[in-house]
Amino acid sequence: MERMMGPLNGIRVLTVENFISAPLATMWLADAGADVVKVEIPGVGDSSRGVQPSRERDGDHRSLSFMRANRNKRSIELDLKGDADRERFDQLLQSADIFIENLRPSALAGLRLTYDDVKKVNPSIIYGAISGFGLPEFNSGDMPYQPALDVVAQAMGGLMYRPEGADKAPVYPGFPLADIFASANLQSAIYQALFHRERTGEGACIDISMLDGVVAFNELALIMRSALEQDASPGMHGLAAPFGSLPTRDGHIVVAVLGEAVWERFTAAMNKPEITQLPQFASGVLRHQHLAELEEHIHDWIDDLTTEQALEQLAAHGVPAGPVLSMDQVLELDNLHERGMIVTMDDPVWGPTRMAGNPLHSSLMEKIPMSPAPHLGADSADILADWIHEADDAR
Amino acid sequence: MERMMGPLNGIRVLTVENFISAPLATMWLADAGADVVKVEIPGVGDSSRGVQPSRERDGDHRSLSFMRANRNKRSIELDLKGDADRERFDQLLQSADIFIENLRPSALAGLRLTYDDVKKVNPSIIYGAISGFGLPEFNSGDMPYQPALDVVAQAMGGLMYRPEGADKAPVYPGFPLADIFASANLQSAIYQALFHRERTGEGACIDISMLDGVVAFNELALIMRSALEQDASPGMHGLAAPFGSLPTRDGHIVVAVLGEAVWERFTAAMNKPEITQLPQFASGVLRHQHLAELEEHIHDWIDDLTTEQALEQLAAHGVPAGPVLSMDQVLELDNLHERGMIVTMDDPVWGPTRMAGNPLHSSLMEKIPMSPAPHLGADSADILADWIHEADDAR
Repeated sequence: MERMMGPLNGIRVLTVENFISAPLATMWLADAGADVVKVEIPGVGDSSRGVQPSRERDGDHRSLSFMRANRNKRSIELDLKGDADRERFDQLLQSADIFIENLRPSALAGLRLTYDDVKKVNPSIIYGAISGFGLPEFNSGDMPYQPALDVVAQAMGGLMYRPEGADKAPVYPGFPLADIFASANLQSAIYQALFHRERTGEGACIDISMLDGVVAFNELALIMRSALEQDASPGMHGLAAPFGSLPTRDGHIVVAVLGEAVWERFTAAMNKPEITQLPQFASGVLRHQHLAELEEHIHDWIDDLTTEQALEQLAAHGVPAGPVLSMDQVLELDNLHERGMIVTMDDPVWGPTRMAGNPLHSSLMEKIPMSPAPHLGADSADILADWIHEADDAR
Repeated sequence: MERMMGPLNGIRVLTVENFISAPLATMWLADAGADVVKVEIPGVGDSSRGVQPSRERDGDHRSLSFMRANRNKRSIELDLKGDADRERFDQLLQSADIFIENLRPSALAGLRLTYDDVKKVNPSIIYGAISGFGLPEFNSGDMPYQPALDVVAQAMGGLMYRPEGADKAPVYPGFPLADIFASANLQSAIYQALFHRERTGEGACIDISMLDGVVAFNELALIMRSALEQDASPGMHGLAAPFGSLPTRDGHIVVAVLGEAVWERFTAAMNKPEITQLPQFASGVLRHQHLAELEEHIHDWIDDLTTEQALEQLAAHGVPAGPVLSMDQVLELDNLHERGMIVTMDDPVWGPTRMAGNPLHSSLMEKIPMSPAPHLGADSADILADWIHEADDAR
């Protein structure tokens, strides 16, 4: 296991986690140098190990899903319902700085993994949970007991009425933004708690809800509904136009015409300065109301242009714009490779595979480690030796 | 100014910021007890103060946009290009723990606000920047000099080919996810740097890119493109079906049928256990390929049911599902009020207005302060007195 200096050097994270939300957060902590130990059910492991597609080589089995969020971690197999393994688990817990879990909240009491259970074993622990709607002990009502996945939180936070096209039917944005934003919020709360522990010696209990994160994303629709008693229009910036994608001869661009200064520059780029005089285009809200008429002017300008030509003309006038890229094109951006945001993981089964790097770019994170996701239980003996000084022959 | 105990008590944040990305991050830091001082151009201020809609009362002018991300902060007017104010700014900087900015990177050198400039004034500062593609001093190429807004980063990170409907044309998800995820990443990096400073005494330079965050969100499409040489299907979980929204008699629900155990429970909820035997439905990938046929079975079941009835049947069989809610319905969820994720801000012009709370729910954040967004320059004298002990009569 490759270990580098990082801001979390010396910090021990014990995690009981599945799928994406908690695993991504602990992977980011591992990127920062934490020693992340993943406690997995013997012979089974993280549920994402069983998700297709997977590949085998020399009897070695690897799911692509599992590779997404488990680099730089170690794995130990422990049966939390068996006495000997539970004793080992509690010893690991005593040695840990941070405990993380994203199990279904209704399962925590049965596994003796509630905050109260864990705090009894380690009173200064930083306990970090991710769930759909919060932990039952801190919230009333039925919601904390309901099974909730990313898409459920997106739907219940009102986000599926925001994308373009959602005036006809709800639109799923197509990626697990509730999971991943929960990962980011857990990460922030963990660092906050570490800072607090360093100043006070106290631990903390963190209760991240996916629905909370979705509502944080939907902040504009919330304040508009409250203050204006109106809904944000689907797919649009409520207060600006044009805003969003436009077809060119060979692809699509996006433009963001926010404010009247940019509107003037946009009309100059189209060589149509005269339309700034039209009363129906006098503000973002008005242009939004007269979008069909506005789009005629835009098509008149853009229909004969390639993406490159349209972007050149907009850049010359300082209008914020860019190409709409496919993943193939994203992979070609030098900026992302140089920043370490696209990295290559040399997986023992899949071989060299590109994946997303770490979005915290700072002087503290200049080089992140790059060990592949662990095999199930691969590090059991090492972890017991390192953390609780249990020798191999003790088992 | 209401000040409560919080994990950032005693921490001073100086910020030169506009619109959403940095303001939201510093608002979250203010929620945690930091003293956040917003340096604004005299008579103008944060660009979002000029965005419509706005309201006036007794000559007092307030933009709704500005209220979104500026609670619990103080405002000082300083002309950074004037000698006397620049001297005051540098003294504030010496007194600060953290400096944050989200100006256009190409403007930083002219304002003497690059990391090098700021570090000369305060060597142990934590410097936090948000930009579209990273700061020019840490990245080669032209991209760091291009103007970039949320929608440009979304487009360039490939996310606009992910939503439902994006097989026809790129779809904008309708909310500023690149801005807000950058806020979250800046927040994590700031707390990471505070923890590091507590252990070592050293500052840090943080360089958050909106495009990096978008790529972190698009991690599944990235690894699928690399490992499988195929694109993630728009609007779908690449490896599962059914997954997403379904129309009921009176609304829409979402279901998440991930894995074969849930598939069996889903067919039982529909009272169609026999279809688990059909070879074309034998895996998520196959069901995804035979979606039209699968949807016939689903419609046969759901078309006569209300949202409530459909969700009851799914819950009885343990299938993760939920209603697709509008913002009006979101505002009625007790869970969110109880958790403080919907809060009421008593704005001096708009009156009591609901807005999103803080998504870091933990024992350290039990009660967050609730002061409205500051008037331009309202706290100038207080800030100079508190931070650099400059008396009123010195000006």
